[in-house]
Amino acid sequence: MKDEIESLQKLINAFTYLPGVGRKTAERYAYSILNLSEDETNFFAESIVEAKQKIKFCSVCGNFTDNDVCEICLNRKSDIVCVVKEPKDVLAIEKAKNFNGLYHVLHGTINPMEGKGPNDIRIKELIERVRGGQIKEVIVATNPDVEGEVTASYIAQILKPLNIKVTRIAQGISMGSALQYADEVTLSKAIEDRKEM
Amino acid sequence: MKDEIESLQKLINAFTYLPGVGRKTAERYAYSILNLSEDETNFFAESIVEAKQKIKFCSVCGNFTDNDVCEICLNRKSDIVCVVKEPKDVLAIEKAKNFNGLYHVLHGTINPMEGKGPNDIRIKELIERVRGGQIKEVIVATNPDVEGEVTASYIAQILKPLNIKVTRIAQGISMGSALQYADEVTLSKAIEDRKEM
Repeated sequence: MKDEIESLQKLINAFTYLPGVGRKTAERYAYSILNLSEDETNFFAESIVEAKQKIKFCSVCGNFTDNDVCEICLNRKSDIVCVVKEPKDVLAIEKAKNFNGLYHVLHGTINPMEGKGPNDIRIKELIERVRGGQIKEVIVATNPDVEGEVTASYIAQILKPLNIKVTRIAQGISMGSALQYADEVTLSKAIEDRKEM
Repeated sequence: MKDEIESLQKLINAFTYLPGVGRKTAERYAYSILNLSEDETNFFAESIVEAKQKIKFCSVCGNFTDNDVCEICLNRKSDIVCVVKEPKDVLAIEKAKNFNGLYHVLHGTINPMEGKGPNDIRIKELIERVRGGQIKEVIVATNPDVEGEVTASYIAQILKPLNIKVTRIAQGISMGSALQYADEVTLSKAIEDRKEM
């Protein structure tokens, strides 16, 4: 049975490429494809090929774009640059809708365990942008995990001599969550960074 | 930003076709596609189109196949037929590896709420197969939910006059699970259907 329907097995294998998708979920997805109309499956297949072919990285900020320079770099005037790890972090911040500045995507974080140093991510490009003189503040919005913190410290250390403001996104209790479920590090950080009301 | 990268939005929309995949998961999947190699994305897209084009239903049992008659119907000799709701149930039973008989896929269950009667699923084809005279036992392996039970009763009622054995898969406590977590219906069914040791 397993070796029987080759094209189905091929499709199941393809779905295991997706993050967090094991054999069982891949099977479920593959079967669902068979229930789609031919138009829908063609649209699906086209979208995959087209996205891969068209989407490149913005030559300025490193975000995804289907042009040379992304819409944000092209249309926004700002002297604040928000530094993030990945293109999807840009989308997350854009969704929050309270930031109207520019971005800089690092495409990774410093991670000695994986042999990733400062030269393996887009820090050089960030320094060049800052040296260009248009930027007054760099907000470091890498994740609050070990690699993110190390990367943030490194960036702060290297940018401060260039005479600009370097800030870090605030850490604390998530909105809507309960104190009792917060981990200790987050809780102590929240107390440490308390604000006057 | 959201309207910006059209090909990315298209890909995200395509992923929401999958069962249980909302906007957020679709975004995650879409981004992961961009990290695949071009060979991998082509393989992915091809698999989708190919599966849809090649996979049909077996003219005998209704299971998926890329031929006219599926491998199981073609190669197995047996006088026992296991009736299931969907093609994926065949795969599930095949994985258990203790059944060596034939299958009959109903492609649905009787569901008056959705306006689905006995004529909307492959019961007529089952009766014809049984009338063919090669079948001694029909195991009804529809799901143990309301529709599955109704369908099972209907099949039993209609097949018994044809002088064959009609059986239903056993219900009870799942292997490896704890009594205390079993629901009451399952538990009472397990006690009712107890076996002598």
